Order: sequence, then structure tokens, then C-alpha cells
Amino acid sequence: MPLPVHWVNLQPDSHLSVLDRGFAYGDGLFETLRYHRGHFHLQDPHLQRLRRGCQQLDIDYPHESLQQHFATTADYLCGRDIAEATLRLSVTRGTAQDGLQGRGYAGAHGTPNVVFSVFPCKLPWRQTPAPARLILNRHPLATQPLLAGIKHCNRLEQVLAAKVVREEGVDEAIMQNQAGQVIAAVAANLFLADGGRLYTPDLSECGVAGTVRALVLEQLAATCMIHVEQRPVGLSELYQAEEVILSNSLIGIQSVANIEDHHFTATGVADQLRSCFFDWVDRQAQ
Amino acid sequence: MPLPVHWVNLQPDSHLSVLDRGFAYGDGLFETLRYHRGHFHLQDPHLQRLRRGCQQLDIDYPHESLQQHFATTADYLCGRDIAEATLRLSVTRGTAQDGLQGRGYAGAHGTPNVVFSVFPCKLPWRQTPAPARLILNRHPLATQPLLAGIKHCNRLEQVLAAKVVREEGVDEAIMQNQAGQVIAAVAANLFLADGGRLYTPDLSECGVAGTVRALVLEQLAATCMIHVEQRPVGLSELYQAEEVILSNSLIGIQSVANIEDHHFTATGVADQLRSCFFDWVDRQAQ
Repeated sequence: MPLPVHWVNLQPDSHLSVLDRGFAYGDGLFETLRYHRGHFHLQDPHLQRLRRGCQQLDIDYPHESLQQHFATTADYLCGRDIAEATLRLSVTRGTAQDGLQGRGYAGAHGTPNVVFSVFPCKLPWRQTPAPARLILNRHPLATQPLLAGIKHCNRLEQVLAAKVVREEGVDEAIMQNQAGQVIAAVAANLFLADGGRLYTPDLSECGVAGTVRALVLEQLAATCMIHVEQRPVGLSELYQAEEVILSNSLIGIQSVANIEDHHFTATGVADQLRSCFFDWVDRQAQ
Repeated sequence: MPLPVHWVNLQPDSHLSVLDRGFAYGDGLFETLRYHRGHFHLQDPHLQRLRRGCQQLDIDYPHESLQQHFATTADYLCGRDIAEATLRLSVTRGTAQDGLQGRGYAGAHGTPNVVFSVFPCKLPWRQTPAPARLILNRHPLATQPLLAGIKHCNRLEQVLAAKVVREEGVDEAIMQNQAGQVIAAVAANLFLADGGRLYTPDLSECGVAGTVRALVLEQLAATCMIHVEQRPVGLSELYQAEEVILSNSLIGIQSVANIEDHHFTATGVADQLRSCFFDWVDRQAQ
């Protein structure tokens, strides 16, 4: 079986030093990308977010290494006729050098470790995911502007929330901040469609600014002729929305069927956005 | 050179799968212990905190594995006549099994990975550390009761704060919460001595509840005939304290010389606590 497959710093390898700072402190960043027939979807936006994350955490952005990893990974998948896959790439601050320097919280300014892992893809490209069944997560996300927006590896809040999602047998959960404002789902961003407009929560204090979310904000909404806005969103506003929509790199655009007892009916906005999304990505791949 | 030395799940090994959840999401816990002549200091309190952390994160507490690692590590150090060392032990949720199950945030309930790493010790046992020079960290710690108190591996806040500490050429930094209350130093707990009493910040919403801190609260303060209390502490209160004291497993008890322009004079409380601390640990080792 050719997947999963892993590279560590360009070597085919599935192991990493226990002195890696990602392992020690979650001191790194990651991106999850969909691969389809020779192309990694939204590669540039993912790398832009990764670069922003590296700047925010003061990790050297490993441009060359990343480019070579992408080429190696694409060669591997093309060579084995694998049409669809999911890539997780990770960049950490690197390995504490001699077991002393950089062992404590203050990491030495060293060479980042780059890890590429490729897994099978669950949802075939251009397939519409079933509308998601959601619950409301009872534990608010912490407010931390220093870490907001970027996709860093400190994800215990998401791990704990995802555990409840699995136990409840649903697909996702709404995460709020400590002021009760809606932020996102556990592993997806959130849009509300109401009165012909789209809203997505402001993420300046917590949450991950997704690449599909950015694409909707910057391009897809305009293509669909829908006004879109990022701003604080309250829970009652969410419940009163005509349609609620999730976005992430692996599912693309997904309708929300319900949040606990609050049911939503598809008004066509999610379908329209999804269609624009598929077309946009396919055009990029041409 | 016999140190550093590492064990992964009881095997002499310094590498771990890139599918380890500690690497992926900081989904694990760690403890740092001082070793001196056959004994790991405060081993029981460290393991109690680790067990509490495992419960809080729903990770199976690997009791047997930990006990065997401690025995193996002590044998190694005794066999090589290494009198002093620092142990970092880590417990993660384990390895995502097939690259799919447990790859997302919701980890499968698998077998935790246990890593023991032993490093040289910087400060000889019973040596008094020089009074610490501190700055005030400008970025507050996030409030997250779900993760407060335990020593989990989501430590980017500490990594970023420790970077400023190193750049400023000082020893430590005061961390506040978003309400402006004092919580701790970056890698140490905090006590204020004032009017013959000791205060330490309440850690129910953020911070790590240190083992030396617990020992002071539960035993050493009483031995020193000082009343001790945990409660919210404001910044002005900190500046007005007669003496400010740091505690952690590696330094033990350390006086604070200054926090930026606010200088403190030793009143004897830190010295008294340190002496009680050394004696208590040595008694346990007999």
C-alpha cells in the first residue's frame, strides 16, 4: 500500500527526533491540503498562511525545503497513479541541538524541521458532502491574539472539542469565545447566510483563518454576487440565520443541517458557493 | 558522552513517529525532574500532576511504563556514576494508527507514547541560585480553565515569552492574565512575601501548578511557620511586596532581585524556604 507515506527533511522517513520542538511544546505550524491529479489545491494560500505563522512565531520560513517537498510528493503520487490524497505538512522550530541549547522554552534560532505526510483522501473531489449535524461546544476557546489566525500546533482545545463531537456521534461543533461570540467549528470555518448576505466571524482573537474562508471572502462571494463581511457573530444570530455553511480545505463548502435542535434549510447559497469553489480550483489546476 | 540519553517506550531510542499526537497537536503532557544520587526529586508529586493531566485530557495514564522507565533511567545513571541530571518525561496520546484513525483532532483511544530524556544538570544540588532579574511580559496568558494547572505540551505562549526573556538578557518574566492579574513567571511559580505572610497566585484559569509550589503550600510554609495563601494577585501588590520568590523543580527556591525598575531586598523568607526545601528533599531521599 503506497499511502500513508512520509518525508522528514526531504528523506523518506516516518520518524523525528524526540528533541524536535514540535514534540516538546507544539512549537510549530501545519497545513492540510487536498491533492488531485498533479495539483495541491490552494497551495499558495496555504503557504502564505504558513509564512505568516512562521513570522508570528519567529521561525525561519523554509521556502526551499517546502518547494522541494512539494515536487517530491507530486512525483511520488504521479508515479504511482494516485489521483487523490490528503497532505499534512508540518514546520517546527527544529531540533534542540545538544540537549541543552534550545531545550527550555526559549528555542535556539535553528533550522526548522519539515515533515510531509500523505494520507488517503476520504471524500472524492467535486463530491458534495452530506449536510453536517452540529452540536454546540460547551467550553469556550481561549482568547490569544498572539496565536490567532495562524495554524499552529497547540491544538488541545480542538482535540478536546473533537472528542465530544465523536462521542455525540455528530459531524462538528460550534466553538464560541469567552464572550459568547461564535468563532468557528472545530476543524472548519463558519459562514452565515441571511437576507442575501454572508457573514463570517471575526478571528482576530482566536480561531484559524482558513484558506477556503479567505477565498470566499476575497473571490467566491463576489463571483456569486453575494455581499460578504467578517464581523463578530452572536449565537442567537447564528440560530436565526437562513443557512449556515462550513468551509475547510478537505470538505470545501458544506451545508449545516442542524445545530442541536436548530434546523436549517438549504437556500442555495452553499450550493452556489460550492460550485464556484470547485470551478475556481479546477481553473487553477489547468 | 553518556548524556543526553533517551528512551522511547522503554527502548533506547531518540526518535518517534511523525504520527505521534504530541508532534501533531501538542497532545500530551510532560514533567521535568531533578535527579540526584539515585533519587528523582518530588517523583510522587510529579506523577500525581501527570495523572491529573492525563485525566483532564482523557489520556490513559501509563503507570507501568512510567515505573519501568524510572527504574531503567536510575540504573543507567547509577551504572555510570552520574550524580546529577535533569529528566524530561513526556506522555502523549499515542500514535495515529493507520494514518487515518486518530489523524484528525479527535484522537483514537490508543496506547500513550512515553519518552524519557536525560540531560546534564546546570545547577548543582543545594547550590543557591543567584537572585533572578525579571521583566514584565507584555502579552497576557490566555484564560482556559480546561487546561489550567496541568503541564500539557501546548506551550507556545511560554515559547514566545521565553524568547523575549533571552533577547532582553534577563532570567525570567512576570506573566499576567488578561485581567492584569499576576499568574507566574514563564517557567516558574511565584510567591510574594509581605508582612510575614506568603501569597501565591490562584491558577484555576491559567498557569501550571508547580510541584515545588504545592510543597510550599502543603508543607514548607508550615515548617517555616509562615502563613501561606493562594489568591488573585495584582501587579501593584507584586511591586509592593517585601520579597518576591520563584519556585520550580530545577532551581528549587530562587529570590527575585528586580522586576525591571522595581528592586527587592532579601528579607530572609526565600533563604528560609530554600533551606526547608533542601532538607525536605534530602530527607525523602534517605
